[in-house]
Amino acid sequence: MESETTETIIRATGRSLCEYGYADLTMQRIAEASSVTTAAIHYHFDTKEELLDAFLDDLIDRFERQVDCEAADPRDRLAGFLDAVFDSEPDDEFPIALMELKAQAPFHNTYRERFRELDAALRGVVQDAVEAGIEAGHFDAVDTAEVARTVSTMINGSHVRMVALGEDPDETRRVVEDYLEAQLGWSPEGAA
Amino acid sequence: MESETTETIIRATGRSLCEYGYADLTMQRIAEASSVTTAAIHYHFDTKEELLDAFLDDLIDRFERQVDCEAADPRDRLAGFLDAVFDSEPDDEFPIALMELKAQAPFHNTYRERFRELDAALRGVVQDAVEAGIEAGHFDAVDTAEVARTVSTMINGSHVRMVALGEDPDETRRVVEDYLEAQLGWSPEGAA
Repeated sequence: MESETTETIIRATGRSLCEYGYADLTMQRIAEASSVTTAAIHYHFDTKEELLDAFLDDLIDRFERQVDCEAADPRDRLAGFLDAVFDSEPDDEFPIALMELKAQAPFHNTYRERFRELDAALRGVVQDAVEAGIEAGHFDAVDTAEVARTVSTMINGSHVRMVALGEDPDETRRVVEDYLEAQLGWSPEGAA
Repeated sequence: MESETTETIIRATGRSLCEYGYADLTMQRIAEASSVTTAAIHYHFDTKEELLDAFLDDLIDRFERQVDCEAADPRDRLAGFLDAVFDSEPDDEFPIALMELKAQAPFHNTYRERFRELDAALRGVVQDAVEAGIEAGHFDAVDTAEVARTVSTMINGSHVRMVALGEDPDETRRVVEDYLEAQLGWSPEGAA
């Protein structure tokens, strides 16, 4: 659906958000970060909110493709999911930019809707993998929706801890792995 | 240590942060929200960063007093802690303002240090209560540091979920309670 121009604009939005932060993000700066004129940006996106909404939509699409790895074995799917989620360094710019948008969500319903979509996607991947793992006899029987909800809350916590405390994502990953091991009787640590 | 004037300024900082957000918070606006002149504010605090640092310091003091309830029974202490932590409504302004400061932590080491202090305080309360509960024979034996770390990560997750998704804190509280019940063999639900 996206044209090459809108894709260029969306990429430049991400870079500019990381560089200037939410408050100082302007159409002018996005134009400077891309080969697209402000007039062309305005042609595709009426407002900064609309532009950031498209940015979040694109982000969620890519994230879903990344975390929903197609491994047949549910254990590999769960391990691949954790690899994708915890694949950042402390003080990476991207998680910081995302946290700023989360803080803006109460004032922009479009952002909130996107974050809800993202949360549902995350929980869906975990729940499906856990269900498949139980069916295949790899995991203990658990309330799969509850496990997915807890993992998603821990991942949200990890994101804040990385941004606010500068904590290494590997530390929180261990907390999630310990939880999964206690619940499922299986450890994603050292999984393929 | 705090004079009445600095306390007035700090309270006005909190109200202004909630009203205007971090980017639009100015000494002028804080002066308007209090009975103190901008000159007097500058006499006590050189920069906006210094002022927000004092605000966070004060917040942590009050939070520590609130969560560290003095109940003799560790079960009541843990239940009182959860009451204090989950005592807000979705779209409350204060958690939103706090989330904005967390997003600014990578750029202001003073904020980051305060958030680390707050995290250590949170974990300390949980760990002490769990240790006392194990000693008294109320809880199963667990790795108390690990439980404290997990609870703290979940609380961080709850804060983001409340702000970004508009989730009711009671929903995350239930996740934390289920986790504690599974770990400790004791449920804070319905505790005094």
